[in-house]
Amino acid sequence: MTVTRRKFLVQLAASSGYTAAAAAMATLGLGTSVVAAAAPAAPLQLAPGSGKGLKVLVLGAGIAGLVSAYELRKAGYEVQVIEARDRVGGRNWTIRNGTRIELNDGTTQVADFEPGHYFNAGPARLPSHHQTILGYCREFGVELEAEVNTSRSAYFLPDAAKGGQPIQLRRAINDARGRISELLARATNKGALDEELNAGDRARLVEFLKVYGDLMPQAQFKGSERSGYKVFPGAAEQIGERPDPLSLDALLDPDLWTSLIFDELLIFQPTMLQPVGGMDRIPQAFHQRLKDVVRLNTEVSGIRNQSNRVEVTVRDRRSGKQQTLSADFAITTFPLPVLAKVETNFSPEVQQAISSVHYDTASKIAWQTRRFWETEYQIYGGISVVKHETALIWYPSGGFHKKTGVLVGCYNIGQVARDFTAKPLASQFASSRAVIDRVHPGRGAELQRPVSVAWHKVPYSLGAWVHWATPAEKEYTRLNQPEGRVHFAGEYLSQIGAWQEGAALSAHHAVAAIANRVAAQATSPRAA
Amino acid sequence: MTVTRRKFLVQLAASSGYTAAAAAMATLGLGTSVVAAAAPAAPLQLAPGSGKGLKVLVLGAGIAGLVSAYELRKAGYEVQVIEARDRVGGRNWTIRNGTRIELNDGTTQVADFEPGHYFNAGPARLPSHHQTILGYCREFGVELEAEVNTSRSAYFLPDAAKGGQPIQLRRAINDARGRISELLARATNKGALDEELNAGDRARLVEFLKVYGDLMPQAQFKGSERSGYKVFPGAAEQIGERPDPLSLDALLDPDLWTSLIFDELLIFQPTMLQPVGGMDRIPQAFHQRLKDVVRLNTEVSGIRNQSNRVEVTVRDRRSGKQQTLSADFAITTFPLPVLAKVETNFSPEVQQAISSVHYDTASKIAWQTRRFWETEYQIYGGISVVKHETALIWYPSGGFHKKTGVLVGCYNIGQVARDFTAKPLASQFASSRAVIDRVHPGRGAELQRPVSVAWHKVPYSLGAWVHWATPAEKEYTRLNQPEGRVHFAGEYLSQIGAWQEGAALSAHHAVAAIANRVAAQATSPRAA
Repeated sequence: MTVTRRKFLVQLAASSGYTAAAAAMATLGLGTSVVAAAAPAAPLQLAPGSGKGLKVLVLGAGIAGLVSAYELRKAGYEVQVIEARDRVGGRNWTIRNGTRIELNDGTTQVADFEPGHYFNAGPARLPSHHQTILGYCREFGVELEAEVNTSRSAYFLPDAAKGGQPIQLRRAINDARGRISELLARATNKGALDEELNAGDRARLVEFLKVYGDLMPQAQFKGSERSGYKVFPGAAEQIGERPDPLSLDALLDPDLWTSLIFDELLIFQPTMLQPVGGMDRIPQAFHQRLKDVVRLNTEVSGIRNQSNRVEVTVRDRRSGKQQTLSADFAITTFPLPVLAKVETNFSPEVQQAISSVHYDTASKIAWQTRRFWETEYQIYGGISVVKHETALIWYPSGGFHKKTGVLVGCYNIGQVARDFTAKPLASQFASSRAVIDRVHPGRGAELQRPVSVAWHKVPYSLGAWVHWATPAEKEYTRLNQPEGRVHFAGEYLSQIGAWQEGAALSAHHAVAAIANRVAAQATSPRAA
Repeated sequence: MTVTRRKFLVQLAASSGYTAAAAAMATLGLGTSVVAAAAPAAPLQLAPGSGKGLKVLVLGAGIAGLVSAYELRKAGYEVQVIEARDRVGGRNWTIRNGTRIELNDGTTQVADFEPGHYFNAGPARLPSHHQTILGYCREFGVELEAEVNTSRSAYFLPDAAKGGQPIQLRRAINDARGRISELLARATNKGALDEELNAGDRARLVEFLKVYGDLMPQAQFKGSERSGYKVFPGAAEQIGERPDPLSLDALLDPDLWTSLIFDELLIFQPTMLQPVGGMDRIPQAFHQRLKDVVRLNTEVSGIRNQSNRVEVTVRDRRSGKQQTLSADFAITTFPLPVLAKVETNFSPEVQQAISSVHYDTASKIAWQTRRFWETEYQIYGGISVVKHETALIWYPSGGFHKKTGVLVGCYNIGQVARDFTAKPLASQFASSRAVIDRVHPGRGAELQRPVSVAWHKVPYSLGAWVHWATPAEKEYTRLNQPEGRVHFAGEYLSQIGAWQEGAALSAHHAVAAIANRVAAQATSPRAA
């Protein structure tokens, strides 16, 4: 199912073998069969002025909160957004020169990238089909550029224990395709598919496989130009020299498989996009339009449903001053581990749902360094997958050919990330540096100015996302219903968990639910 | 072989069926076996000052000419570049508002795109491994951005005669992979590969295929999320709705196959790049550094080797004034159909080589229009392949979410392009409009301000590129040798024909050959 996709993917890259992979794939394939038929999606449309005279408190200024506030306000609601941090965006957090990273393990880092550089510690890409969040980018004029999620010049690094050398992705991907095509052509020609296919279709299939796998006329695979060159072709008599094709044995290393399918997963398919200058251009664009109603540095300590109001107790983090706010409705967008710490009069069932959902974590490391990957490796953006606790090396999609850039040297999740970030920062950085040096020998020593963000240690986030076992899990279903006058919203309440699109759509869902209540009230005889 | 790759590709897209495809693939696969072992590539390195006191005339200010002049000058040669057009760049031609397109069929078009828009009528992408031309971009500070060559949201349009509806590429690509994986798993489980693989490898292979093709636990293919949704997943209970997987029969349509492998061809693999603002930023950057030695609007009418000089007769196109220039060497970078019209005293063998090589053509059409493909189709860059004389629809890689953009509505080659561009411009535009309307119903009518460029009709180009049958073809070999004091350079004399990289490397080859002659002369006793 949808919400486990990122888990599947990063886990594959980070830690697990093919058994886990197969299990995860099965979950993916089976996910939608456990729930009822789908309803068509409809864009949010609130009647202008329909919220007039009603007040909504929006708790949290991440994407779900900002979208909620923006949409409610457009419909005439009075809105106030309460945010504990000194910035909007929540997990949409772009780190630049001077950004303080204060984790709840007592560590503090201050990024000292050169001006102009940035590091998207949270979301860092926008799939082309995430049209809700992209729609806000369009509406607000947030400038976008292609996010290069895939480079065929990048590498897969096998397990160090297997002693493997880095394998260039163009080689792994195209040799795998060639080997598979050859095997299927051979099996077909042997008669293995005579029951399934008639003679004409078998012939067409073999012709197809020759094109698909770049096979020789007799359907053998002898390597392919698609897999690249040791020496590239040049002028005059300078013909290219190709490496030998990889053996089937090398290709059947389960650690490799993610790299072969990564960019065909729906959320990672081209085209992917990113805001020019950093992902936080999106929350900034909302903030600009909501400046007068967003209250930063304000913690929520209590939420209480009353008969016809909801009361929210807040504390100004600078003055310490406490205050109780009141509104017709509230939307809480806090991650559940944060919400669990807020005192409420919610039903035991809802309190139980909030406190029992397990949040995963994720950690990222970023380095500033010379852009050696471009000049020396022909890598412009994209990801090298490493069989190592740091999981990947992610090259920047912009600023090509500039002198320096920000290289993401770790993006791990789950228990691997918890164990990894339990180590001192210096050990984390050393691990990232060492594996980058295995893929790019001699370059580890050049890496500078690292920062690490471990999401379960980030105050007011306390985690990365939820892995629901099914979209029908009872906590998911329950929290998608309001509790009294309090509605819940966040990526975790969508089928697109861990993505900003999910947060935006969940916000729409909560806003529509409030609007429907208001409309029902207005037409109800009791309200007259 | 390398130089036929574009031919193979565009032909597949434009016109041919699977027999031609298979033949072309075979050529590709076999190409390198007909020539001798490869020599390692070495970057051009001329000793500074080594050209002092020597003059070289560079004929043509396309990429090969500009690179030649730039490198010679760095080594101390006196250089003059002769260019017939009123601009540098040759086939690297970016069309903007006001650009006049005067073809030798007597037609004149003037582009009236809105300011800021551009259309790369010639080269429009830079593969990441084309490090020579990319190296100049780096050296000159030509700003680059990702060129989105592939979007999984784009389409393949089957032959109208087959009545087919557009098929989204994510669906075709991933259903094909799923079907192939299922067939191979089935054949493997039936014992078809028992001779080739031991039991352990067979089991590993089947596990791999489950991941590779997104198969069910029993290795059946029942469709994949990778193939996309009819209704995307959303918030709360909004689960996604998938289309049925495509049948094997639909996938065995040879017209489709190019679309399935396009972005795995080495020259089309991600990451691809483009200069921000238009491809001609590259020749402009050279021009800026060569301004004082480039003579525009100057036609070459004669080239004569003398015993110790080379004489070049030129004519100023504005004044009509004729003049004979003299130098120690010349490098001619004219496309051969242009060079064939120049009077020379070359040997019959060389004259024959020049006049006998067949140049292919290519034609492109560009439209300015509302960017409907983004908002309505989630297409951000990339290419839709159409089984139609116009071959493709190519969406812009930059300016995302702006109001309008330039859409390439035709890129065909060979006889298809000759036939197509023999029609009146209005018919060409109508054809392009009609097929765009088949992929994007209702949008054909919105297309505006078309321009068409047919390269065989462009004065001083007279063609697009050469398809050598093998890299050892005798004209190729001969023209990679100098004729007296005249050296030849151009993409057609490289293994990377039709690409700027080939032009740059061929220029290096010619420049190195001159430098070697000079060095040999200097150390020869006769020179003392």
